[in-house]
Amino acid sequence: MSGNSFGRLFVLTGFGESHGPAIGGIVDGCPPGLALSAADLQGDLDRRKPGQSRHTTQRRESDQVEILSGVFEGYTTGAPIALMIRNEDQRSKDYSEIAARYRPGHADYTYDQKYGRRDYRGGGRSSARETAVRVAAGAIAKKYLRLHAGILIRGYLSQLGPIRPVGFDWDEVERNPFFCPCAETVPRLEAYMDALRKEGDSIGAAVTVTASGMPTGLGEPIFDRLDADIAHAMMSINAVKGVEIGAGFASIEQKGTEHRDEMTPAGFLSNNAGGILGGISSGQDLCVRIALKPTSSIRLAGRTIDTHGQATEVVTKGRHDPCVGIRATPIAEAMLALVVMDHFLRQRAQNAGITPPVMPIPAAAR
Amino acid sequence: MSGNSFGRLFVLTGFGESHGPAIGGIVDGCPPGLALSAADLQGDLDRRKPGQSRHTTQRRESDQVEILSGVFEGYTTGAPIALMIRNEDQRSKDYSEIAARYRPGHADYTYDQKYGRRDYRGGGRSSARETAVRVAAGAIAKKYLRLHAGILIRGYLSQLGPIRPVGFDWDEVERNPFFCPCAETVPRLEAYMDALRKEGDSIGAAVTVTASGMPTGLGEPIFDRLDADIAHAMMSINAVKGVEIGAGFASIEQKGTEHRDEMTPAGFLSNNAGGILGGISSGQDLCVRIALKPTSSIRLAGRTIDTHGQATEVVTKGRHDPCVGIRATPIAEAMLALVVMDHFLRQRAQNAGITPPVMPIPAAAR
Amino acid sequence: MSGNSFGRLFVLTGFGESHGPAIGGIVDGCPPGLALSAADLQGDLDRRKPGQSRHTTQRRESDQVEILSGVFEGYTTGAPIALMIRNEDQRSKDYSEIAARYRPGHADYTYDQKYGRRDYRGGGRSSARETAVRVAAGAIAKKYLRLHAGILIRGYLSQLGPIRPVGFDWDEVERNPFFCPCAETVPRLEAYMDALRKEGDSIGAAVTVTASGMPTGLGEPIFDRLDADIAHAMMSINAVKGVEIGAGFASIEQKGTEHRDEMTPAGFLSNNAGGILGGISSGQDLCVRIALKPTSSIRLAGRTIDTHGQATEVVTKGRHDPCVGIRATPIAEAMLALVVMDHFLRQRAQNAGITPPVMPIPAAAR
Amino acid sequence: MSGNSFGRLFVLTGFGESHGPAIGGIVDGCPPGLALSAADLQGDLDRRKPGQSRHTTQRRESDQVEILSGVFEGYTTGAPIALMIRNEDQRSKDYSEIAARYRPGHADYTYDQKYGRRDYRGGGRSSARETAVRVAAGAIAKKYLRLHAGILIRGYLSQLGPIRPVGFDWDEVERNPFFCPCAETVPRLEAYMDALRKEGDSIGAAVTVTASGMPTGLGEPIFDRLDADIAHAMMSINAVKGVEIGAGFASIEQKGTEHRDEMTPAGFLSNNAGGILGGISSGQDLCVRIALKPTSSIRLAGRTIDTHGQATEVVTKGRHDPCVGIRATPIAEAMLALVVMDHFLRQRAQNAGITPPVMPIPAAAR
Repeated sequence: MSGNSFGRLFVLTGFGESHGPAIGGIVDGCPPGLALSAADLQGDLDRRKPGQSRHTTQRRESDQVEILSGVFEGYTTGAPIALMIRNEDQRSKDYSEIAARYRPGHADYTYDQKYGRRDYRGGGRSSARETAVRVAAGAIAKKYLRLHAGILIRGYLSQLGPIRPVGFDWDEVERNPFFCPCAETVPRLEAYMDALRKEGDSIGAAVTVTASGMPTGLGEPIFDRLDADIAHAMMSINAVKGVEIGAGFASIEQKGTEHRDEMTPAGFLSNNAGGILGGISSGQDLCVRIALKPTSSIRLAGRTIDTHGQATEVVTKGRHDPCVGIRATPIAEAMLALVVMDHFLRQRAQNAGITPPVMPIPAAAR
Repeated sequence: MSGNSFGRLFVLTGFGESHGPAIGGIVDGCPPGLALSAADLQGDLDRRKPGQSRHTTQRRESDQVEILSGVFEGYTTGAPIALMIRNEDQRSKDYSEIAARYRPGHADYTYDQKYGRRDYRGGGRSSARETAVRVAAGAIAKKYLRLHAGILIRGYLSQLGPIRPVGFDWDEVERNPFFCPCAETVPRLEAYMDALRKEGDSIGAAVTVTASGMPTGLGEPIFDRLDADIAHAMMSINAVKGVEIGAGFASIEQKGTEHRDEMTPAGFLSNNAGGILGGISSGQDLCVRIALKPTSSIRLAGRTIDTHGQATEVVTKGRHDPCVGIRATPIAEAMLALVVMDHFLRQRAQNAGITPPVMPIPAAAR
Repeated sequence: MSGNSFGRLFVLTGFGESHGPAIGGIVDGCPPGLALSAADLQGDLDRRKPGQSRHTTQRRESDQVEILSGVFEGYTTGAPIALMIRNEDQRSKDYSEIAARYRPGHADYTYDQKYGRRDYRGGGRSSARETAVRVAAGAIAKKYLRLHAGILIRGYLSQLGPIRPVGFDWDEVERNPFFCPCAETVPRLEAYMDALRKEGDSIGAAVTVTASGMPTGLGEPIFDRLDADIAHAMMSINAVKGVEIGAGFASIEQKGTEHRDEMTPAGFLSNNAGGILGGISSGQDLCVRIALKPTSSIRLAGRTIDTHGQATEVVTKGRHDPCVGIRATPIAEAMLALVVMDHFLRQRAQNAGITPPVMPIPAAAR
Repeated sequence: MSGNSFGRLFVLTGFGESHGPAIGGIVDGCPPGLALSAADLQGDLDRRKPGQSRHTTQRRESDQVEILSGVFEGYTTGAPIALMIRNEDQRSKDYSEIAARYRPGHADYTYDQKYGRRDYRGGGRSSARETAVRVAAGAIAKKYLRLHAGILIRGYLSQLGPIRPVGFDWDEVERNPFFCPCAETVPRLEAYMDALRKEGDSIGAAVTVTASGMPTGLGEPIFDRLDADIAHAMMSINAVKGVEIGAGFASIEQKGTEHRDEMTPAGFLSNNAGGILGGISSGQDLCVRIALKPTSSIRLAGRTIDTHGQATEVVTKGRHDPCVGIRATPIAEAMLALVVMDHFLRQRAQNAGITPPVMPIPAAAR
């Protein structure tokens, strides 16, 4: 109950500290018969992995995942799937200072307040390293959804500081280290990040994730709405400070005539809803956007207190991402996949054999 | 598992359709010894109640709540507290049209797709009427937190369409029908709403909710972070399309030096975090902002399909809120209270007797 | 989390005290499309109802159940089904003594120790009256299982004090007030109970519940085994002190050659397993037997302490069942139905579309 | 949701197959500040370990547990504690036959029916090997309860086939390979087991587990009663077919005057309740007795079917326990510890600061 499990029917329970022996998790509830091997997880793990470009932390981790259970002769058996990633590059000395003083904007202070002690090595449990486990588990959900439900989960960097992509091409996303959907924007991102690195400062970002090929009917009204569970999932990612679905915050200034997505036999005419009505999927693409704060791990000194409550300064040495948003796309995809997978199973449990009065109308293009 | 329960230790399970015999819920997990009567719930129910001004739906409901269990001789006993509100004003004819055709932007279509049938009277289970149960349950949590934890939960309307308050005064919030914290802004809101009503259109809004007097240490890292549970709670409210905490979406363009809340022995110097670091409360005020879409229940005709999939038009008659955001403040307060109460109990379970290395530093002013 | 909910996908959350305004509950997770009315629940409620014969308490309760939500035009909608039974016959004076002293064998003492206060009227939350809610909810599960899964849940009184039925006939069970499956045994039960009533003492009993028409594959290995959930369900019933499945305690003295149920293409040759292997249903009938203690509510004085810890005596006046086992059959059936229903939905969620390597072999006769 | 998690606040999630790379689990919810190392777990693991005497399976496993997370500088941090035990002695050939035919009394058939496939090596997930994880996790709970709550969890073999101990001495339990509390009985057990081994048959057994030093107030009335959760826990152990608490099945023939445990200022006068009243701990010792079936893994041929549904015979070769009950004591202790620990935390969450009207009266001796 210290909250290391996520999901109701497709449940990930994670473990591990940044500088402990290993990180990992258990995926419980994966249906039997899914063809699965470590290679299926490695792809997304590599997309999240640090050191892929000069724009992310240079910490070196191969992030090789080992499947310890739940797979037999190449297929899932319905038994829990245990995943383990051994920690390798542990330069603890980089982090020794955190033991004595609290980094502003970090969990150091709140962990001490909550638990009375903390594993300060590299942030311990609060390190973004933990997200590798989400990515590995999400890859299982993504594969199941793609093969057995025809659902495709994808994401991209939709903003970095002041810069937004000027064009959009899904194919471009995997061609640059930013997951930016616009080739023309990439050089501007590189220039911006290079300048930022010189400054020693960090910057926020936004990531957008989508699910296409959605069936109608996923999501439980009232508290376990599809959008509510997505908000929970996204806000549980390190550094995320905001979540919006469809028109999101723009709907504050929209009128009803503008926001409502009109319906025709040919499909919805817009998607301000982001694919969810009354907490239930409408068959349109899910569109979710998240805001990520700038990391506080920067080498520009900041005022803080030490563990005795005395005033001091802190400078975070070591290797950190000047923009955590750059590596957040696979993480957000993974969390969306976990939510959609969970609701796919819930829908099957409760409403198997339901025949809706009309065929689902085709979804409008994004 | 159709998702009508919320919380882990302080659990609300709701029931009821807009035009059924009653709506209500069961609050399970309230500690014994809380002085409680229906009157404690009625105050917030009245704040949410329709027909309080010409700017909300004129539907008449006294929303009288009855406590059926869990209270003995004026105090909670630790047994589940059952709440029931009988439905009164049921002009079903207003809603007969919905049976045959799907209102764009409503849950009509998705409910039919998910369940194969729906209670179409007044939106049935998807009606905003359901939120009265949240408000009643939230009032129990609010009272417990205020009396036994010194935590104060409050909210206000922070934007209506293009209009934002120009000043801020907590006392003003309860003096106008908009929950607007600025007296000077109220006439502009009234004029805007009167014009909107003539048009027959609706508008979006934003509500901000806060918790002050927060202890440090509430929230479970990783998946059950305080911010993640808050996002879940808020996004589960009808019409909410976005949630942000602290600097929220503004952090996209912030630099680390600007975003990080520096600490001194005298307290934090800012609150971009919104009172949460690493998913755990820092002792600063919680600051949460939500975006509410404009209702689709308007009298301006919109294109849609009927239950046979044929093209048609729909005009929503009946009495609806042109801006659901106006009545959303008590609902958002209730959901925040449920989350904070749940984590207050969780923290007590796991970390009772923990002595943090330093005293919590004072929180900065909002 | 004070434990008033049962189930994962088909969830009952109960409320109510013996002498409060009402008892009831919410059934969440019932699939849509089940034909349902209060009449479907009343049958089992009447079977459990007190005052059906001179052998049970003469307390008068019509136990009329009201469905407050979740049913529309005669069918479940998938929304939560709220059930309420108003309390009628509340002779509080009968119970006033309990406020001051603890009845041995009752929950009076432990409730005070746990909560610091208790609703002492008629046992309040600890009253067996609460089981009426289980029966009402179980009736929904029983109907769904019978109509949509071909599963029949039945039970009978298998022992009362020293008396066991000498014959067995399902049809006889409903023909006598004991739920005894043997007509020849009924007069002996009547004589025994009449004598016991004169004595003013009470007696224990055993009830057996079965499910026939079981599919294979229900139950989740390891912790949520079908047998484990059944044990949980049965032991949660007032007065139950033991649960056994299949050969149960007799297996202590069995050898492997005797206990193992051999299999042939024509079916299992025995059912020592009670229909469950490795926590999963085998397709054979489920056979569960529970032991019920004698009630402590008797008019023979017993030593105890008062709420100040002083020695005293207690005599329970009022109207009580000299053998709670007599009315326990419908309650045990209901709890078995809730468990089987829950696992029926869980199996559908996780293993929909699984094709087992062989057809299920026919189950052996009981 | 395939049921590999146990507990609400102190949660064990297990994984692993008998012949996969490893078995293990994650303990989530352990309070911070508990002094813990692998050595604390090894003691109980060794008590459960096979090959400790000629009376158990000769399979060799060192069962060395590794703690992968959640412990820092010798103390728990509140983060999830991951446990891993590598599998060593994997004579898969011993088990090849199971792939083709179903062992009567085993989970082979039901796994195939449920999942459509199974890891047949050594029983895979259904192997009793899985219980090592329970023992490791239970050891954490046992240590916390002993050090921080003064609760002592112990168990013993209370029957083996027809043989019951004739005397009782806690100290004797750890002096013989049977966990038998009576030295005089040990030679009879040895003779019985030697004869049984020659026969090639197996036998059932009973194990009793107790908790002393219990506080009052643990357990949540209605569905999450302490006894209900104990029944769930015990029945989830491989081979368990029955659970009884206190007088258990004997209460069927008891009268109320005999069963009720009278109370005096000096304490309870008996413990037919087994330490639980109304689902809540009374402060008396918890007394739980479980029935374990004889294993079906014997070398005497039995009738069965193959995976094509054809009649055949099966002889289980390999190394098996002729009486699984002999090694069950540490497993039952572990499960009891998990339940008590969970309710200890739940009680702290909900009723912290409750002052009962009287001091708990002293508990009677066992």
